[in-house]
Amino acid sequence: MSRFERKNLAGMQGYSWGEQPHDTDTIKLNTNENPYPPSPSVQQALAAVDVARLRTYPPPTADALRAALATHHGLTQDNVVMTHGGDEGLRLAITTYVETDGAFGMATPSYSLYPVLAGVHGARVVDVPLQQDWRLPDDTAQRLNRENVTLTCLVNPHAPSGLLTPLADLARLAQELHGVLLIDEAYADFVDPALHYDSAPLLEHHDNVLILRTFSKGYSLAGLRLGYLLGHAELFAPIIGKSRDSYNIDFLSQRLGLASISDQPYASETWSKVRQARHDLRSALADLGLQAPVSEANFLLASVPQDAARSAAQLYAALKERGILVRYFDSDRLRDKLRITIGTPAENQRLLEALTQLL
Amino acid sequence: MSRFERKNLAGMQGYSWGEQPHDTDTIKLNTNENPYPPSPSVQQALAAVDVARLRTYPPPTADALRAALATHHGLTQDNVVMTHGGDEGLRLAITTYVETDGAFGMATPSYSLYPVLAGVHGARVVDVPLQQDWRLPDDTAQRLNRENVTLTCLVNPHAPSGLLTPLADLARLAQELHGVLLIDEAYADFVDPALHYDSAPLLEHHDNVLILRTFSKGYSLAGLRLGYLLGHAELFAPIIGKSRDSYNIDFLSQRLGLASISDQPYASETWSKVRQARHDLRSALADLGLQAPVSEANFLLASVPQDAARSAAQLYAALKERGILVRYFDSDRLRDKLRITIGTPAENQRLLEALTQLL
Repeated sequence: MSRFERKNLAGMQGYSWGEQPHDTDTIKLNTNENPYPPSPSVQQALAAVDVARLRTYPPPTADALRAALATHHGLTQDNVVMTHGGDEGLRLAITTYVETDGAFGMATPSYSLYPVLAGVHGARVVDVPLQQDWRLPDDTAQRLNRENVTLTCLVNPHAPSGLLTPLADLARLAQELHGVLLIDEAYADFVDPALHYDSAPLLEHHDNVLILRTFSKGYSLAGLRLGYLLGHAELFAPIIGKSRDSYNIDFLSQRLGLASISDQPYASETWSKVRQARHDLRSALADLGLQAPVSEANFLLASVPQDAARSAAQLYAALKERGILVRYFDSDRLRDKLRITIGTPAENQRLLEALTQLL
Repeated sequence: MSRFERKNLAGMQGYSWGEQPHDTDTIKLNTNENPYPPSPSVQQALAAVDVARLRTYPPPTADALRAALATHHGLTQDNVVMTHGGDEGLRLAITTYVETDGAFGMATPSYSLYPVLAGVHGARVVDVPLQQDWRLPDDTAQRLNRENVTLTCLVNPHAPSGLLTPLADLARLAQELHGVLLIDEAYADFVDPALHYDSAPLLEHHDNVLILRTFSKGYSLAGLRLGYLLGHAELFAPIIGKSRDSYNIDFLSQRLGLASISDQPYASETWSKVRQARHDLRSALADLGLQAPVSEANFLLASVPQDAARSAAQLYAALKERGILVRYFDSDRLRDKLRITIGTPAENQRLLEALTQLL
């Protein structure tokens, strides 16, 4: 540690990002990337770029992209703020709506970046433990209000379980919470369309709701770092004008994001394939004794039985030796589980073959 | 304002970014961009990108780029941290080394983003007014130490004057300051090589020095948002592991940054052309009665005499009407001045013709 770093930083642990090998042999089922490449329209947009345009600053508020996303969600441009990946959206929400000695709310377990960002900011984390079935307790809002929480982040579908919280529950939470409710929809593109999950209409009735979306998963653009927040223009004013870096979205991301969002049929097709593979993989894992709850995300949280030949930690390590990366969390309620990203059918098959050998 | 925003945000003004028109007719001499396009190697690198690679997260710490930059500066990879534009480097330094109720040091006037970032963080700004000739007062360190400043940002060459502070003065400041000294070298690529300005060797003797560089100006990549910090590995540990977003540099920026840095002859040629144009423009402005101090940056700070036909504010507006953007700051010591970015010889000529008509 450095003698110059802030006291709260010195006293905390950073975020542990998933392994990112860049060989082409590794089967990467550890960081919830889309197994399919981005739309061909993205390659075309890239090929059309004259790098002379990179000489000047990008449009500071990325208005063309905001307008396209507003149309996509049935909102107006003022309801959209672009962020440098979903992670920047989370950081901006915390640095904008939580006092440095304030309180930040979350459910546990969930995205392990939340408490790190709150810790960097200096805020106190108020945890609400999820129920055994990963559902929120009924008195979630009351617990958070009692601790003067001014911003709560909930990931929906939930990570790492994949459980989808229904819109009615979110509406009730938004109504009851005194502070801002950020619904982190990193995985919402993979929700079964038959469930008609669309949170944007929540904004009609709730001025304290923020919805976080990303191009990383649904649009296969994790390498680009592009996300956005949906919410009321009034709520966004301090982000756009103050807490955000002025040119937070580079020119190429603006161009490729536009190309990507414009090809909905392609993206939808990848989501549909992921859902089919999710269904098949869940059945096959169950056949091996690894039960996973129904997931509306692009991953499954598989439990390793106590009497299995190997523990979850051992399976993680043995799979890694075989060139297959999944995610193991050495934390409460997750030590007997593996979070497995949905790959292509061929990748999932390789995983199942390896698990069959190991169990 | 939003009823949910933090108190210190509600009480402050945001940063005012320069106008960014994207028509090709405007002569843009207002935000210090390089007038020449990036190296052809950047276009080649872009053309070689398979967007399938964007499906996965980028290398979290951009090590290939760090290694190349370390070699370029005669340092090791541990001495380099990549940032999403220089602005992220400034924000990270503030959020890492200044307590939220701590003190941040700067000289005035200088980059108007500094106090905004300190204000967002919650820190108190300690200003040291520059002398009449834009030099730092001799007791700068004592004044900052007395106020318990833990981070001081100085831009060198200075903006908006272009004055270069000699290395010996920086070494003395680093020695005397109790906190971290960040030397913001956004414009250092344009310093006359005959002056042998190279601050990297300061790191040998000072563990509290950070040097901020950017690809925006010298490498004509303002649209990409790519910068970096140089400093001691120990000083960087909390940035790399805690305060920085985990994937803060997207894949395309890593690739194009590498291509750009590898073509030094091209970049040096643009710097040389800018220096020649700077010399010529300064003389021509003086002939019109607009005196500017010697500048080692890619801009000139021209003073408009009191008895001129138009004031600086009027000249700014009249030039804008003619499709020429320069920067006017409505702030102390700058109201009678225009900051003019060095353009191509043809652009500078158009500016001079317009000024001749207006004065």
